[in-house]
Amino acid sequence: MAERRFTIADVARRAGVSKGAVSFALNGRPGVSDETRARILAAAAELGWVPNRQARALSTARASALGLVLARAPELLGADPFFPAFIAGVEKVLAARDQALVLQVVTTPEAEREGYRRLARDRRVDGVFVVDLRRDDERIALLEEIGLPAVTLNRPDVPSPFPAVVLDDRPGIAAAVRHLVDQGHTKIAHVAGPEPYLHAAARRQAFTDAMGEAGLDGRVVDGDFTAAGGRDATRRLLTGPDRPTAIVFANDVMALSAIAVAAELGLRIPDDVSITGFDDTDLAGYVHPALTTVRADAGGWGEVAARTLLALIDGPEDADVTDTALPPAELVLRNSTAPTPPTPQETQ
Amino acid sequence: MAERRFTIADVARRAGVSKGAVSFALNGRPGVSDETRARILAAAAELGWVPNRQARALSTARASALGLVLARAPELLGADPFFPAFIAGVEKVLAARDQALVLQVVTTPEAEREGYRRLARDRRVDGVFVVDLRRDDERIALLEEIGLPAVTLNRPDVPSPFPAVVLDDRPGIAAAVRHLVDQGHTKIAHVAGPEPYLHAAARRQAFTDAMGEAGLDGRVVDGDFTAAGGRDATRRLLTGPDRPTAIVFANDVMALSAIAVAAELGLRIPDDVSITGFDDTDLAGYVHPALTTVRADAGGWGEVAARTLLALIDGPEDADVTDTALPPAELVLRNSTAPTPPTPQETQ
Repeated sequence: MAERRFTIADVARRAGVSKGAVSFALNGRPGVSDETRARILAAAAELGWVPNRQARALSTARASALGLVLARAPELLGADPFFPAFIAGVEKVLAARDQALVLQVVTTPEAEREGYRRLARDRRVDGVFVVDLRRDDERIALLEEIGLPAVTLNRPDVPSPFPAVVLDDRPGIAAAVRHLVDQGHTKIAHVAGPEPYLHAAARRQAFTDAMGEAGLDGRVVDGDFTAAGGRDATRRLLTGPDRPTAIVFANDVMALSAIAVAAELGLRIPDDVSITGFDDTDLAGYVHPALTTVRADAGGWGEVAARTLLALIDGPEDADVTDTALPPAELVLRNSTAPTPPTPQETQ
Repeated sequence: MAERRFTIADVARRAGVSKGAVSFALNGRPGVSDETRARILAAAAELGWVPNRQARALSTARASALGLVLARAPELLGADPFFPAFIAGVEKVLAARDQALVLQVVTTPEAEREGYRRLARDRRVDGVFVVDLRRDDERIALLEEIGLPAVTLNRPDVPSPFPAVVLDDRPGIAAAVRHLVDQGHTKIAHVAGPEPYLHAAARRQAFTDAMGEAGLDGRVVDGDFTAAGGRDATRRLLTGPDRPTAIVFANDVMALSAIAVAAELGLRIPDDVSITGFDDTDLAGYVHPALTTVRADAGGWGEVAARTLLALIDGPEDADVTDTALPPAELVLRNSTAPTPPTPQETQ
């Protein structure tokens, strides 16, 4: 299925000349007879081959497209409300600037590396968005190596020459913990996102730090951002020993699934258990009880990331496109949190 | 922001020759001196201009990319679980075939038309997916006119030369109605999707037809596929006169928001009101009560649509790529439906 591209050697062979003669003819240098030049140009045209310099200039100056390579199982992508909102934000800017978005979804690290390499090699995009940063993210070095301009969502934990558009999740999680502590909760648990992601790690760390500041120990259990994972983690917490009276979830989907778990166990939210989410998805305000959550503006993040990447691409080569800090994630108070019950262990 | 492309006239001007001389030189025909030819080639290289034939062959045989133009407000796109799942399905096929997906989100009919024209003109894609078919959809004629291969999701209501990948929503809705009628419901309402969409119209018609077959009159109220729209429509139905005992929603998001409305009104689902959704989103099985809904395999639809479009593009020009029918949407029974209460008007 891969594209077949002809090389200068193919043109030389077809025209019956040396590679040097092809180069001379196509670069308009003397020393090649009219007849030979004609034969070479005809061979190049027949094969659809043009020399790199022309090809590069043609593809022109610009691909007028930006790339997004998502390394997620398609199933997980379909369940995550972040990406449609982020992409919608990116597209708001691109539509106004006559740019397109090239999207690749890959499922293995090899396919991810090859995805970026291919985008660069085929000059399909002028730059890429780097999302879902991971610990020791090898994409930064790869993009430097292949010379593809990039913008990262948040700062990587490795040295990076690329501008970052920063939206700090942590103040939102810290505010959720403080809110619960203010309501009298001391047994507060966190259902975290998948380990390798820096955003999941940042939320987990923000939870632990805020609990520490309140003089409390926070319990953390692993989640995977899916509804099924949220249900399982919530069941473990609510049926195990020393049940928490409040749970801070790393995303809304897991928190929304917790509403059902509580109902099945005969526990009332928020009277018996308080919960908070993260994302402020479309549905969060329309469930019962309406979900207290943390809002990070994914659409706005997409807009600023797109503008930053276009500035990087359009600017002079040594232009200094710096990091941008967006307003941090913030707590949205609704009805899924309440003061702690007097003796939570006995309410069941 | 638009790309600046040079023409043959620019090259001629720069080299100080006629346009005919440029053409002769670049097509390798005799009658141009070596020196002139060299000047012309240098001018062309400096401007990054290559003649169309070469440009077309270069961009090569293939863009190795498929296009998706979405005419939806970015906000609505972010709230719809169909597209991530559909795109994930498309990408499954594209990743294995070394193809990319070019995504454009547009908000006006003009921008939509221009989006398709630009994809074709810049040879950015080899073909496009046509989703969200509307009544008298003008995109079919446009794509024919600009010669861009396409696959439609379902059959348009206008003549179309393009293969359709058909997934019939109607049997799922009809099954939902029959299930409710079997449970003794006679007052059944439908919260529909936005009017211009053929899929929303098909679901609405399937509801009305199935009610008619059961000898019942179905009430239809307009929704817009959002959680807020679902809440408003549900409130109207449940607080108005002659309250229905069952509601068939045109999508899950609206149905999920109805769970909260019922709870706020002191009505139990399914004891007082039965509800069904459409989509089988990630969350549908993890709410309380778990949502009875209709499943249409958006991911599988994406996969088959991608394979169909690639077959159309890869095949000989007169190859007959025919319509494909996928398994129709089907009812997924969970816990949000129950037999009708004896005297529903009095339970409130």
